[in-house]
Amino acid sequence: MSTPSLLILPGDGIGPEVMAEVRKIVDWFGAKRDLTFDVSEDLVGGAAYDAHGTPLHDDTMARAQDVDAVLLGAVGGPKYDALDFSLKPERGLLRLRKEMDLFANLRPAQCFDALSHFSSLKQEVVAGLDIMIVRELTSGVYFGEPRGIFEEGNERVGINTQRYTESEIDRVARSAFELAMKRDKKLCSMEKANVMESGILWREVVTRVGQDYPEVELSHMYADAGAMQLTRWPKQFDVIVTDNLFGDLLSDLAAMLTGSLGMLPSASLGAPMSNGRPKALYEPVHGSAPDIAGQGKANPIACILSFAMALRYSFDQGDEAARVEKAVEAVLADGVRTADLLGEDGTVPVSTSEMGDAIVAKL
Amino acid sequence: MSTPSLLILPGDGIGPEVMAEVRKIVDWFGAKRDLTFDVSEDLVGGAAYDAHGTPLHDDTMARAQDVDAVLLGAVGGPKYDALDFSLKPERGLLRLRKEMDLFANLRPAQCFDALSHFSSLKQEVVAGLDIMIVRELTSGVYFGEPRGIFEEGNERVGINTQRYTESEIDRVARSAFELAMKRDKKLCSMEKANVMESGILWREVVTRVGQDYPEVELSHMYADAGAMQLTRWPKQFDVIVTDNLFGDLLSDLAAMLTGSLGMLPSASLGAPMSNGRPKALYEPVHGSAPDIAGQGKANPIACILSFAMALRYSFDQGDEAARVEKAVEAVLADGVRTADLLGEDGTVPVSTSEMGDAIVAKL
Ligand SMILES: CC(C)[C@H](C(=O)O)[C@@H](O)C(=O)O
Ligand SMILES: CC(C)[C@H](C(=O)O)[C@@H](O)C(=O)O
Repeated sequence: MSTPSLLILPGDGIGPEVMAEVRKIVDWFGAKRDLTFDVSEDLVGGAAYDAHGTPLHDDTMARAQDVDAVLLGAVGGPKYDALDFSLKPERGLLRLRKEMDLFANLRPAQCFDALSHFSSLKQEVVAGLDIMIVRELTSGVYFGEPRGIFEEGNERVGINTQRYTESEIDRVARSAFELAMKRDKKLCSMEKANVMESGILWREVVTRVGQDYPEVELSHMYADAGAMQLTRWPKQFDVIVTDNLFGDLLSDLAAMLTGSLGMLPSASLGAPMSNGRPKALYEPVHGSAPDIAGQGKANPIACILSFAMALRYSFDQGDEAARVEKAVEAVLADGVRTADLLGEDGTVPVSTSEMGDAIVAKL
Repeated sequence: MSTPSLLILPGDGIGPEVMAEVRKIVDWFGAKRDLTFDVSEDLVGGAAYDAHGTPLHDDTMARAQDVDAVLLGAVGGPKYDALDFSLKPERGLLRLRKEMDLFANLRPAQCFDALSHFSSLKQEVVAGLDIMIVRELTSGVYFGEPRGIFEEGNERVGINTQRYTESEIDRVARSAFELAMKRDKKLCSMEKANVMESGILWREVVTRVGQDYPEVELSHMYADAGAMQLTRWPKQFDVIVTDNLFGDLLSDLAAMLTGSLGMLPSASLGAPMSNGRPKALYEPVHGSAPDIAGQGKANPIACILSFAMALRYSFDQGDEAARVEKAVEAVLADGVRTADLLGEDGTVPVSTSEMGDAIVAKL
């Protein structure tokens, strides 16, 4: 088998800093576990705009299509706020998702024991929380046409289109059922079938796919009730599947329940390539955090855990993924904390780079 | 001035039970405060479907247009799950909202001192919480055309349209700014301007309306970040304004933060009628709770507080509204609890009707 390839797109804000720590982990695997990656690096988001006048250069897009996995830091920043919609940093990320056809966004929301007190929720509500949200990522209102701002009579109207085909729903539902089979065999699908026809079709197709997974206990919930239930008692869920827009809000909500956003990774997976690996992009859940960029304060753990997800889902190295995850837990158990993980107990925070080193030391 | 008119639509599930308690309050005002209402009652939702084969009869719609305020209990139930989309109980409610043009849905999320321990959030995060979400209620993806399930090639596609005109955004933004002026003069507008053009127009129009309210501190947040921030530290907000769909999720999320859904009222307001009163519909936030319907277990407080909102927003009786609200607080302080408000301390719950009587006794 040829050397697996990895395209690194650090992006904006704290992206480059946290990615530098991932490089240390990648290097460690090459040196100590004979697991070598063919790593290349390129620009995305504001960084790409600054260099090329576009948030994603065509060459970068082509490279992303060609590699086994893409690892992205973060995009965006106030510097780019005034840019035209089509040039905004986010468009680079959205183009990657769309053209790589990464339809299944896996968003684990896990509460780390050492950090559960950070949650705004009561300890008993979140301790041990371990749920997985599967968000559809290539369709829905994010991409549906017609879209835009149009003249109508003597005023303007802003239009976006929510749009789902049966096959789009079918494939993401299958991903979610497959995941549920490997977990607690419980899947909850969320939509607004009470007010949206696209939600009716969603519910119907998910139910139909469920017939192929009789072992999985399938339930349906309106997305507003879903937001409530996630807040009230999140541990009632195992896997949740939902559309692009609801998934955006609900997965961020679920992330916040854990209280430690700087800890959460994500994977966005597409169809299998000719080598059997799925098209894949991995990225931390947090944003580019322009306010602390360049100060060595950022927490690299979410990005490191995103690489762990790559080991698991792209490179079939579940054991090595678990090794990284255990190293992270061990470092936390030792009380090593970046600034975002500090309580009021007077612990001195470590820098981004010190956190990366501490994790490498535990591997 | 003629006797103010009130149309009561108890609806389904626990709707009729909780509404019976509101009637006691209404009667008390007639008997003791010389504040008499011309009350009529009619059907909505499943109850209307059972009687007339439609979730809202045209005659009821006409009456709703004619009265000073409508008070609705709740709609829906499993009995109606298999009905065609256009006949579902929810369509009755949506028709009322749309034809009465109730564009501003006021959703207070308030945490009652006596109940803050019910929240899944830490006490310090929610104690004293008092925010107001203003949700646009007559447009957006709930009503936009085209909508439906269509054949396309050899599969079906579900389509809904998110659609906002400048004037639709303008008027709900004004309602929100007006409310902010009467509160802490802070307004946060939420959309997804980073991915949706309708969100771009939303942000632009809200910003423009803000120029008429220089005293109000206006901020903007992406709706996913909004969901996070509501979960993390809700007290950072005063008034929030958002669209119909985001508002559906975010206001339910905010409601759940308080931990006592059975306590929360809402008002849906339209343009002023010829008598200067806004078109108005008041309803509790909770649903029809078919599982406990008819058992005398339901908490009537949300519906009673919805009537209090009617006193304030439709009948210019802010002092009398406060009287009702204080009576509710006093009853709670006395430890009177319906079953939904019970902890594990062995308190014996009161029935729906006993709760209503207790509140009347405090008035
Ligand atoms: C950056 C933005 C376009 C993106 C989204 O809305 O999908 C982000 O919020 C996410 O969830 O990955
Ligand atoms: C019952 C349903 C149609 C409704 C909505 O989605 O608007 C409800 O969730 C609400 O928020 O009032």
